[in-house]
Amino acid sequence: MSLVGIYKDLKRDLNDIEKQLELTIAADHPVLYKAAFDLLKAGGKRIRPVLVLLSSQYGDKKSPSVHKTAVTLELIHMASLVHDDVIDNAELRRGKKTVKAKWDNRVAMYTGDFIFARAVDLMTDFEGAEAHQLLSAGVMEMSLGEIEQIKDQYNWQQNLRRYLLRIKRKTALLMALSCQLGAVTSGAPANVGKRLYYFGYFMGMSYQITDDILDFVSTEKQLGKPAGSDLKQGNITLPTLYALKQPEMRDRIVQVLESDLATDDDWQEVISLIKNSKAISLSQELSERYLMKAYQVLKDLPDHAATRSFRQIADYIGKRKY
Amino acid sequence: MSLVGIYKDLKRDLNDIEKQLELTIAADHPVLYKAAFDLLKAGGKRIRPVLVLLSSQYGDKKSPSVHKTAVTLELIHMASLVHDDVIDNAELRRGKKTVKAKWDNRVAMYTGDFIFARAVDLMTDFEGAEAHQLLSAGVMEMSLGEIEQIKDQYNWQQNLRRYLLRIKRKTALLMALSCQLGAVTSGAPANVGKRLYYFGYFMGMSYQITDDILDFVSTEKQLGKPAGSDLKQGNITLPTLYALKQPEMRDRIVQVLESDLATDDDWQEVISLIKNSKAISLSQELSERYLMKAYQVLKDLPDHAATRSFRQIADYIGKRKY
Repeated sequence: MSLVGIYKDLKRDLNDIEKQLELTIAADHPVLYKAAFDLLKAGGKRIRPVLVLLSSQYGDKKSPSVHKTAVTLELIHMASLVHDDVIDNAELRRGKKTVKAKWDNRVAMYTGDFIFARAVDLMTDFEGAEAHQLLSAGVMEMSLGEIEQIKDQYNWQQNLRRYLLRIKRKTALLMALSCQLGAVTSGAPANVGKRLYYFGYFMGMSYQITDDILDFVSTEKQLGKPAGSDLKQGNITLPTLYALKQPEMRDRIVQVLESDLATDDDWQEVISLIKNSKAISLSQELSERYLMKAYQVLKDLPDHAATRSFRQIADYIGKRKY
Repeated sequence: MSLVGIYKDLKRDLNDIEKQLELTIAADHPVLYKAAFDLLKAGGKRIRPVLVLLSSQYGDKKSPSVHKTAVTLELIHMASLVHDDVIDNAELRRGKKTVKAKWDNRVAMYTGDFIFARAVDLMTDFEGAEAHQLLSAGVMEMSLGEIEQIKDQYNWQQNLRRYLLRIKRKTALLMALSCQLGAVTSGAPANVGKRLYYFGYFMGMSYQITDDILDFVSTEKQLGKPAGSDLKQGNITLPTLYALKQPEMRDRIVQVLESDLATDDDWQEVISLIKNSKAISLSQELSERYLMKAYQVLKDLPDHAATRSFRQIADYIGKRKY
């Protein structure tokens, strides 16, 4: 089945989740409501709900907790995006002005707080302590990751391990939990939940590395924000880390990163240097390695329609160009 | 028993709660740890833990959930303070630099997120759904209140009702929940929990109104921040609302609030106008009225050592001068 086929298959569930998302963020407050609503409507692929729905197919996918889990995970994701934009000082996301750009940092802080408070409130209704514990421990680790992100900004001396831990906390963890919690809340066998966690984790790592590559090699139109935004915001991602290992580029990159006076031309030069170096293919290789590990996990899962769907998702992630 | 006596009586419990607070905010991250630790050490009166401990005396005060509840409530309080300082652009709190002043808004945002994530994680361990639901609904309402606070800043046309709703969400709600949850988690009778909620609510309203009065009439030394800070930050509190009703002051207050060019002398003049007007005694009257309602609730509680302690706390709140 293709990716389109997966979405078509889940359409009824996804529509219900979408409706629940809209109801959940409804607030009797114009600015807040508009900020949260715009964020919801800016879309995204609802990857986390899709992962929850697919993994719930290993258990009783009709369990009333499944949709609630999907809504909660998407809300946590949305809340973290709004706060991330403050950290990154980002003006655009998916071609739309961010909350902090449209209003200000304070509104962004509180919109995030509000959406997150709604998610916490939903979590309360989860049955069983396990899903609860997994999710709240995950949220705690994500909040640590966001702090680390501040600390690592403009720090070109960080090592690969720090980068990998950061993207785990930023992306892979919530994807891993989406896969695992779909299984847990539908009553699937415990070992299936555990394996799905690792599938989500490896896939999420590959996904984020690809994202970080695309930030260099895609066009502004495809990205919905200027190419090279990560680097300009001081966000040192994998292509930059690999480029820094190349003596002929290192000094120039460090010079621009450390300068308070770097012009747009300086940034463009450095972005272009990285984009045209072997840092890109090295990054692609690492992304590919994570994806292979994700496929490996799928081999240990029962032969099941959901397993085939997960394989399709991995195929999509391996091929995506923006 | 005097207030000192109450603290002395609860000393062993409060020490344990303090230790749990320290352990809970420990983070393997220097800036975050320092920010959270300083915040913890800046102290405060640990009013919420005291309220939890006292209300747990109506049930089984040895229940393992009681201390956890106290820690959770104090963490939620701490997290909200850090985010409030961003909203209010506050430089000082209790004589110490705020997190946002010492570092910046982003660190403050993430320190708050981190402390709050820890609180959510602790909530997970609560036994029984009731405490959970009460607390998460409360957190959601607090987050709405914080948004309203932004909306109301510098808005001198707001009415008394908006002010009262704002201080409910900012202060009274968490005090009310502290009283109620101490009863709930110790297995006290349901009607006791409900009454204690109202005691905490009325007392919290009185407490915050007094706080807002003291911001005008106390000295910088007593407050740990310049007098009149609320007004300068655009925070329209009860004394200002009453002063705005007096024709001879209204125009001058509005002029300064609406001006982008108001000097320090302008602010001092307006603060002094309000401080020396009958707005202060009118505010004191309303604070007193809430306190009377709090005493009234205590009359319907069982004759119990805790009831007497709550009365002492109400006496203290009625008399406090800074």
